[in-house]
Amino acid sequence: MGGDTGLSVTLPACVQFLAANPKAQLILVGDEALIRASSPHHGLDLSTTRVTVQHASELVTMDDALEVALRRKKDSSMRVSINCVKDNRAQAAVSAGNTGALMAIARFVLKTLDGIDRPAIASILPNQLGTGTLVLDLGANVDCTAEHLQQFALMGSALAQATFDYGSDVLPSVGLLNIGHEDIKGNEAVKAAAALLKNTPINYIGNVEGNQIFTGDVHVVVCDGFVGNVLLKTAEGLSSMVRTKLMHHFKKNWLRRIGAIFALPSINAFRHEVDGRRHNGAALLGLRGVVVKSHGGADAFAFSSALQRAHDAVAHGMLELVTKGLSDLSSHGATAE
Amino acid sequence: MGGDTGLSVTLPACVQFLAANPKAQLILVGDEALIRASSPHHGLDLSTTRVTVQHASELVTMDDALEVALRRKKDSSMRVSINCVKDNRAQAAVSAGNTGALMAIARFVLKTLDGIDRPAIASILPNQLGTGTLVLDLGANVDCTAEHLQQFALMGSALAQATFDYGSDVLPSVGLLNIGHEDIKGNEAVKAAAALLKNTPINYIGNVEGNQIFTGDVHVVVCDGFVGNVLLKTAEGLSSMVRTKLMHHFKKNWLRRIGAIFALPSINAFRHEVDGRRHNGAALLGLRGVVVKSHGGADAFAFSSALQRAHDAVAHGMLELVTKGLSDLSSHGATAE
Repeated sequence: MGGDTGLSVTLPACVQFLAANPKAQLILVGDEALIRASSPHHGLDLSTTRVTVQHASELVTMDDALEVALRRKKDSSMRVSINCVKDNRAQAAVSAGNTGALMAIARFVLKTLDGIDRPAIASILPNQLGTGTLVLDLGANVDCTAEHLQQFALMGSALAQATFDYGSDVLPSVGLLNIGHEDIKGNEAVKAAAALLKNTPINYIGNVEGNQIFTGDVHVVVCDGFVGNVLLKTAEGLSSMVRTKLMHHFKKNWLRRIGAIFALPSINAFRHEVDGRRHNGAALLGLRGVVVKSHGGADAFAFSSALQRAHDAVAHGMLELVTKGLSDLSSHGATAE
Repeated sequence: MGGDTGLSVTLPACVQFLAANPKAQLILVGDEALIRASSPHHGLDLSTTRVTVQHASELVTMDDALEVALRRKKDSSMRVSINCVKDNRAQAAVSAGNTGALMAIARFVLKTLDGIDRPAIASILPNQLGTGTLVLDLGANVDCTAEHLQQFALMGSALAQATFDYGSDVLPSVGLLNIGHEDIKGNEAVKAAAALLKNTPINYIGNVEGNQIFTGDVHVVVCDGFVGNVLLKTAEGLSSMVRTKLMHHFKKNWLRRIGAIFALPSINAFRHEVDGRRHNGAALLGLRGVVVKSHGGADAFAFSSALQRAHDAVAHGMLELVTKGLSDLSSHGATAE
């Protein structure tokens, strides 16, 4: 039903996604009459076998309390789509709705994987190299122990393997977000996590600092959900300020507007490269199923990126990689004792 | 002695600062022979009564352990300059050196104000409005209690009053950095701090999110030093990426280079407006004296901004404002009981 904007975003995104992934199939979950009425306007053909409509009579709103979303709206589009994953009718669910509600429902319906205490939210931020840096947790868990951070590192490593094409013999590098490179830096949870991560079967490279998210020095950055959420919103706020100010200066007078015409190819190339929409789609990691959260304000291109992310996570065996990582960790732990 | 670059940055910065502040005087602390030899090359006239040279035989390096800086180098330029503040020979000290060492020495020599457990680092980040948002703590304290955050809020409010010109009857607005606006959001320390801040004699406006630092919605943003350091480095990393990528696209081929010429006025105006150098100079708050830390990699313009910040903090009675805030808090607390 599509976050802030609704079907006018999600339906065109489906068209883009189906064109880009000829073997993929979609189940559209929501108000069936509305979906059937709107689809032709957005060029989505419901007569093919590639698209199914699954009716859901309710809708979780952005303002719904978790209790309401979880206990009272049992036929919400969110709940029904996650049920599709649970029943193996779908391999992944994608939503642009209320993050807290999506996490609560997904956790309740799908349950967490063995060895995972708390699911985490992972997303990709742009970097200098153009490859993208995976960062987690972005807000699911505000108070984290060292063990939680270790689990995030394992899940992040597996998701990065399933998302990026590093080549078969390269393990993604994982850094622990800290305020300096030395071992003595950081708060108590982070210092304890650093000790654990040295004995975790991943390519742990030590502490990294906030700026390294954007240099591309490291594939995966791990932090608690409070810090992750602050850094994500800081990056969004700064990007938005830079965009507004740059455009402001280019529109200031007619001479500058002419300048802007000549500068347009560069500015467009720049905007494309740092376009957050390409990286839209945060994975809810640690569940027994693939669930991807799109930004609520996503446009069609951004929402199709979130669909693509869910598709790729399934195609590259993300769940199997996470499960394998967790079992390696427990056998590794057993050997170490 | 000047951070990463030395006298070639600090001496020209002194020239700029003295020209902009005709009543200000400077004491240059460091290797006297070197300072006297270098000054003429940078247009700094040591024969006026406005400039004094104070010899210091040692130098704290960026790699010095706190122990070394504090216990062994008792004649370092850093220590001697802070001694000048203690002895009332200077009203403020400015350094571009090792932050940890500067904080340790300042705390040891000057001591903290009554009612302050831990000093904090405060700096100004650019915002949409062009006014700048004061953020603290940026890295001095990694594990903070609610009481620490309350003290930071009080000190930040006083520094903002002494730094910005809000008009006499406007109290700076102070927000608590959190991951949502609702009271139930946040980790335990932040939730407890929110409760305390509602009973603190400042203009507390509630929770703010990372993006609001850049909108200018709020004058002062309070967070613990771990979160503050991560957000500062995230902002620096993202800014650096944006700058590099934008320039990369403008230099890609000759057509784009021509475009860049036409776009230059806009780009320069934009760069000036988001120029972090104008906001260089972090205040070490909570000490019995004014100490300002410049970025280690500051250029002359940036270092002169740090000198200006120290000057303004003194001129506007920052210490008196902090002291008054603390005494209001304790009498406020006494009334509430």
